[in-house]
Amino acid sequence: MKDISLDAKMRELETLGADLHNRDFLLTWEHTPAELRSILLTAQCLRALHDSERSVRAFDTGLAVSIFRDQSTRTRFSFASAATALGLSVSDLDETKSQIAHGETVRETAVMIAFLAEAIGIRDDIYLGEGNRYMREVAAALQKGYEQGVLSRRPAVVNLQCDLDHPTQTLADLLHLESRFGGLDGLRGRRFVISWAYSPSYGKPLSVPQGLIGLLPRFGMDVTLAYPEGYDLLPEIVDLAGKQAAAAGGAFRISHDMAEAFDGAEIVYPKSWAPMQVARRRTELLRKADQAGLKALEKECLDENARHASWQCDEALMKRTAAGSALYMHCLPADISGVSCEKGEVSKDVFERYRLETYREAAWKPFVIAALIYLTRVQNAPAALRRMVDSGTPRIR
Amino acid sequence: MKDISLDAKMRELETLGADLHNRDFLLTWEHTPAELRSILLTAQCLRALHDSERSVRAFDTGLAVSIFRDQSTRTRFSFASAATALGLSVSDLDETKSQIAHGETVRETAVMIAFLAEAIGIRDDIYLGEGNRYMREVAAALQKGYEQGVLSRRPAVVNLQCDLDHPTQTLADLLHLESRFGGLDGLRGRRFVISWAYSPSYGKPLSVPQGLIGLLPRFGMDVTLAYPEGYDLLPEIVDLAGKQAAAAGGAFRISHDMAEAFDGAEIVYPKSWAPMQVARRRTELLRKADQAGLKALEKECLDENARHASWQCDEALMKRTAAGSALYMHCLPADISGVSCEKGEVSKDVFERYRLETYREAAWKPFVIAALIYLTRVQNAPAALRRMVDSGTPRIR
Amino acid sequence: MKDISLDAKMRELETLGADLHNRDFLLTWEHTPAELRSILLTAQCLRALHDSERSVRAFDTGLAVSIFRDQSTRTRFSFASAATALGLSVSDLDETKSQIAHGETVRETAVMIAFLAEAIGIRDDIYLGEGNRYMREVAAALQKGYEQGVLSRRPAVVNLQCDLDHPTQTLADLLHLESRFGGLDGLRGRRFVISWAYSPSYGKPLSVPQGLIGLLPRFGMDVTLAYPEGYDLLPEIVDLAGKQAAAAGGAFRISHDMAEAFDGAEIVYPKSWAPMQVARRRTELLRKADQAGLKALEKECLDENARHASWQCDEALMKRTAAGSALYMHCLPADISGVSCEKGEVSKDVFERYRLETYREAAWKPFVIAALIYLTRVQNAPAALRRMVDSGTPRIR
Repeated sequence: MKDISLDAKMRELETLGADLHNRDFLLTWEHTPAELRSILLTAQCLRALHDSERSVRAFDTGLAVSIFRDQSTRTRFSFASAATALGLSVSDLDETKSQIAHGETVRETAVMIAFLAEAIGIRDDIYLGEGNRYMREVAAALQKGYEQGVLSRRPAVVNLQCDLDHPTQTLADLLHLESRFGGLDGLRGRRFVISWAYSPSYGKPLSVPQGLIGLLPRFGMDVTLAYPEGYDLLPEIVDLAGKQAAAAGGAFRISHDMAEAFDGAEIVYPKSWAPMQVARRRTELLRKADQAGLKALEKECLDENARHASWQCDEALMKRTAAGSALYMHCLPADISGVSCEKGEVSKDVFERYRLETYREAAWKPFVIAALIYLTRVQNAPAALRRMVDSGTPRIR
Repeated sequence: MKDISLDAKMRELETLGADLHNRDFLLTWEHTPAELRSILLTAQCLRALHDSERSVRAFDTGLAVSIFRDQSTRTRFSFASAATALGLSVSDLDETKSQIAHGETVRETAVMIAFLAEAIGIRDDIYLGEGNRYMREVAAALQKGYEQGVLSRRPAVVNLQCDLDHPTQTLADLLHLESRFGGLDGLRGRRFVISWAYSPSYGKPLSVPQGLIGLLPRFGMDVTLAYPEGYDLLPEIVDLAGKQAAAAGGAFRISHDMAEAFDGAEIVYPKSWAPMQVARRRTELLRKADQAGLKALEKECLDENARHASWQCDEALMKRTAAGSALYMHCLPADISGVSCEKGEVSKDVFERYRLETYREAAWKPFVIAALIYLTRVQNAPAALRRMVDSGTPRIR
Repeated sequence: MKDISLDAKMRELETLGADLHNRDFLLTWEHTPAELRSILLTAQCLRALHDSERSVRAFDTGLAVSIFRDQSTRTRFSFASAATALGLSVSDLDETKSQIAHGETVRETAVMIAFLAEAIGIRDDIYLGEGNRYMREVAAALQKGYEQGVLSRRPAVVNLQCDLDHPTQTLADLLHLESRFGGLDGLRGRRFVISWAYSPSYGKPLSVPQGLIGLLPRFGMDVTLAYPEGYDLLPEIVDLAGKQAAAAGGAFRISHDMAEAFDGAEIVYPKSWAPMQVARRRTELLRKADQAGLKALEKECLDENARHASWQCDEALMKRTAAGSALYMHCLPADISGVSCEKGEVSKDVFERYRLETYREAAWKPFVIAALIYLTRVQNAPAALRRMVDSGTPRIR
């Protein structure tokens, strides 16, 4: 039986004509809408095949390298799942996260791990001003190595979360939204709120809210960024969000009132983050290994957080959303009041109502990563994907 | 050339008609004799193929997840060997074993690691009352996730040792016995002794002796459980052993005299374990992280152990067994007197005589695990296995 | 299009008739020139295939075990890359390096990890007198296990660096030399200098210089070993180097003057190592866990090193080499003055000039390891390799 929906997606992918072959994927805003749509379509095709127990193996053999400069269970398993499904083996480069390696060491290590590698997935989200820069250092070393004939191929660098963006998360979020609102066209004009929320911890990365405002307005969504005054994101990304919204017919605005922001919202994404200024100070203190300074900063920030403890997504706030039933989203794990902490980002009843939805949101991430590896490494990806679909190789023999 | 023995096993497997597809494997006593026989036969078939350098790959791609909440070299390699042979890639979830995670965290993590997983192997044997419960929490979360459409398939949970049972070990033991006594029918009425033995450590899990008394009488064996008074196993499993023995025509009795138990025994399995009451107190102390209490408990228990230092399997005891030549078994590593400790579970000369036999016993474990993954994940496994045998794909090209 | 160079190498390999099947690879000097040439040719063939995006998968499934008793990024990735390219999955045995396991434990563990393994790669270079012995203990246990029917096959032990030799490094070095000097015949009579060089650390292994003098004179090279008096290598290997040089028409001499050694050299390999006597004392102290003794030894050795701080490969020294342009080599990472340390083995300008060359040198290592696994595990390897070349399976579908 022919899968009509899969076939339609294949044809759209062929029509788009986007080419990510031999490129990296570091920030969504470095890519055209056609490229982003190609990623979404490829993720959907790979998922449709996998869910129907067909093999999505693209590589007979090959290595996928992961570098996690921060602890991670979800992203680690998403990357391993994606690489494995494509036929790659994962090798993890275990760096001590305390050390911000640069220059010669990064350049040399990047080449040494890349001789037979297809893709290098990197998570480096702790140090503001460092994570994305590190990825570019790795990418530049690979490019040089390739141009000078040291590497026979150029592995792709895939951003698994940095200080600026978390593209595999936000593209998974976008796929979840697409599935909930009847396709990408169904997202135009939808009121989406990414709001700061209270957490009993401090220092969470800025990459998810920045990634969301940098991506969603480009698909015509009406995005509100809400946070208590002082909890600013990087100004260049806020600027970009506004410009991209204007260019794409989406909207972008900032609010400092969570309740007001929730009024009439169709999707809410309440999530804690550290103010940019705090992230900067923290990076400096970490660089100097100033333990006393870090302790003082933590206390100062938790006190400040406590002043905004009312920024919690509870039933009262949810009632203000469109028809009282906005879609709740989160990148997980959430700080759930009375479950994972005394008081957190979301009340227990709200989270429980949307728990399965957050799981469905997360389910897209392995396929986004697989799509990124596939599109950056496979030549003429739409044709190769068509061959994969036509072969219909079962995953289990 | 047709392998007659392999063909006979294939036909027996087809005749049994047992179906483990889409199920977990947590305790042997939750499975019918036909299911257990299917596992043994599948393990033998996979081993026959592998030993003759034919491929047993069943999956084109796929993920096998391992969760070890206790250190393990043997089981870790058995699981990796089994998964790899079937074509799966292993990803390890590294939990700090100090923390007994429950509830929301387990539920969420189970789903997050399972999106593309086929099997999740778990070892959790430290805390009496916890290990098997944890596995069931994981399994319940997967089942819910599957039923609610979050997971496109339901990965199997495989017990790699818990507080109650160690089924991959005891099924490997059973395969070893089968190979030594001319098939399963040759085991009926055989006198098997699982005996506590002295060790200079305390707190070893109860799962091996419990697993053995819960399994072997079901195959008609005459099983004696021997231990110094006070070193009790869980009463519900002891009860079960007696009932299962009666139902299957086997026998089960308890002795508090190692020498008397060895009289006329055909197989002996001397192994240390912690008394159930000690395991319970230890779990409480570990939960409270009561280091002083743990230290006091250890001293108390080692003193108690020392009172039973004569419970060592030496040549004098072995002379009392049937024809003075009972088969010695152990799950390894054994506490060998004069080798790995001053005084332990077995004398150096006895162990050395049976060293290779214990290796042969251990050799079955990877194939038991492979059989469990195969039967729980492959639809109509006997037919699929027949196709595998007929294809005769060489493992090395 | 037929690859003429690849075809020529295939034919030479077939002509050599060397057979490494079912053997280990522990020291280059235990192997005949024909065997070593077979390894070089196989590495070149595998690389030619891989670089042209053809698959070099030899195993449908299988396990490659790594044991690293010392930290390692490069060798770890080389081993993983090699195993993965051949179709094997890597499982790492994580031993605490503080413990020198021997006897029963090694014997048992070796068998337990080997039931389904094809190759076991071991790095154990910290303890002089221990590393190679440990590998032989593992190999002997595997051999016994195989002969006695415990193992259905005999996995190969591959030396990834020990206290005596570093064969995967030196064979990679030899391949690099071959590519730079127009084939192995182009190496005859070439003046090669392996020289001690200053480092602000002490205790680096002896295996690279020992491996180089034990290998290169056998290919007719004119090898000088230069070091300050007292920084001796193991006398039995120095003796062997002289004998092998004489037998093969190469040359071998010792100098205690770096500048004199560099005069007219065509290749220089300046690298720090610990004097044999220091390595012996260090092993004793590590065995006794004598922290104070280790600290005292370190201070004594760094003071001694400091007396030879002029042993640095800088532009002035390079000017003395043949045409002032000898090839600089290093196994990486190098101690680069002003980059990775204040003063080290090589000046910044010299290293920077040869940086890409050192990367090209390193690029051979994964293919050397792949060749070793291939030749020791695949029956009639030249014929199998011919089939692989003829099939031309693309690596990416």
